[in-house]
Amino acid sequence: MSISTSVDRLAEELARLPGIGPKTAERLTFHLLQASADDAMRLAQAIVDVKKLVRQCSRCFHLTEGEICAICADARRDTSVVCVVEQSRDLLALERTGAFRGLYHVLLGRIAPLQGMDIDRLTISALVQRVRQGIIKEVVIATNPTMEGEATALHLASVLSEHGVKVTRLARGLASGMSLEFANRAMLEDALAGRKEV
Amino acid sequence: MSISTSVDRLAEELARLPGIGPKTAERLTFHLLQASADDAMRLAQAIVDVKKLVRQCSRCFHLTEGEICAICADARRDTSVVCVVEQSRDLLALERTGAFRGLYHVLLGRIAPLQGMDIDRLTISALVQRVRQGIIKEVVIATNPTMEGEATALHLASVLSEHGVKVTRLARGLASGMSLEFANRAMLEDALAGRKEV
Repeated sequence: MSISTSVDRLAEELARLPGIGPKTAERLTFHLLQASADDAMRLAQAIVDVKKLVRQCSRCFHLTEGEICAICADARRDTSVVCVVEQSRDLLALERTGAFRGLYHVLLGRIAPLQGMDIDRLTISALVQRVRQGIIKEVVIATNPTMEGEATALHLASVLSEHGVKVTRLARGLASGMSLEFANRAMLEDALAGRKEV
Repeated sequence: MSISTSVDRLAEELARLPGIGPKTAERLTFHLLQASADDAMRLAQAIVDVKKLVRQCSRCFHLTEGEICAICADARRDTSVVCVVEQSRDLLALERTGAFRGLYHVLLGRIAPLQGMDIDRLTISALVQRVRQGIIKEVVIATNPTMEGEATALHLASVLSEHGVKVTRLARGLASGMSLEFANRAMLEDALAGRKEV
């Protein structure tokens, strides 16, 4: 942008964020240049605070500011069921439904060898340790319905099969509210394969 | 998002940025949570640096880290022509063409009474002072071709008319490369009114 190095650097840093292209980065840079110092500093401080305060729950690897996350610390949760998700974002999506009252386990990724995410970086061994304690009766695998999520689910199921725990997987089929006309082949195949007697 | 107050605060601050809705803010928050501390801190520091280092050029009000911006300080620029723009962004767009070799004057806004931008907050009196020094022979008004930009241009032309300087306005008409079929009425009217002999 040729105003100054500090302006160029801010635009570069913003453009590194996901979904922010060079044009948007330039627009955001100008916004911050024109914003009050207080407003801009609040954003900078919020970034600093989050990196300083937020860490992973030592049990389930969900994000938390404490040693253990609010869900693991909640005595009203059902400790016999653990739902395994790829990321904290997925956990939050499930929590928003209010339909699951068990605990979670965040894998911190999925098996994606092409993207350099190898199995060892996932929290699978910590999950196995939790299962070995004998309290967990069912592991609900809630990885994404993608090829990588499927591969991760299959690997998890095979690892967990040695530990005498019930392993389930989220149902797949038609999306509620959608119309058959617009369902793709994979959805319709899932819906047929998973059909239930009424 | 109910992870922690620091996470909520970061999401709120990001959602205050223009064009960033709550969903995008959540996505960016998770990106920053998962980014390395170094990467996140570089962004925070870039914001802090820009607010600390960047100010307005004391002559033309373009953004700069020095007392005077690089354009005002460039001895090769034509000091007899000044192009008046609403914002530094507009200046940069013109600079990218390389077609203008004069100086600039940034108004820091436009006349927009409905949005609470009154005339006194624009840098019009500083522009008049520059014109009074007698070096400037032509003022090119390059406010946006919008109703507010037009109102600002008319006001500027009337203020400058007392000071014996030539006042011009950027040409309006068909956008280069476009097709007549898709031009709107205002564009076609501009194109007709501004037609030139070949």
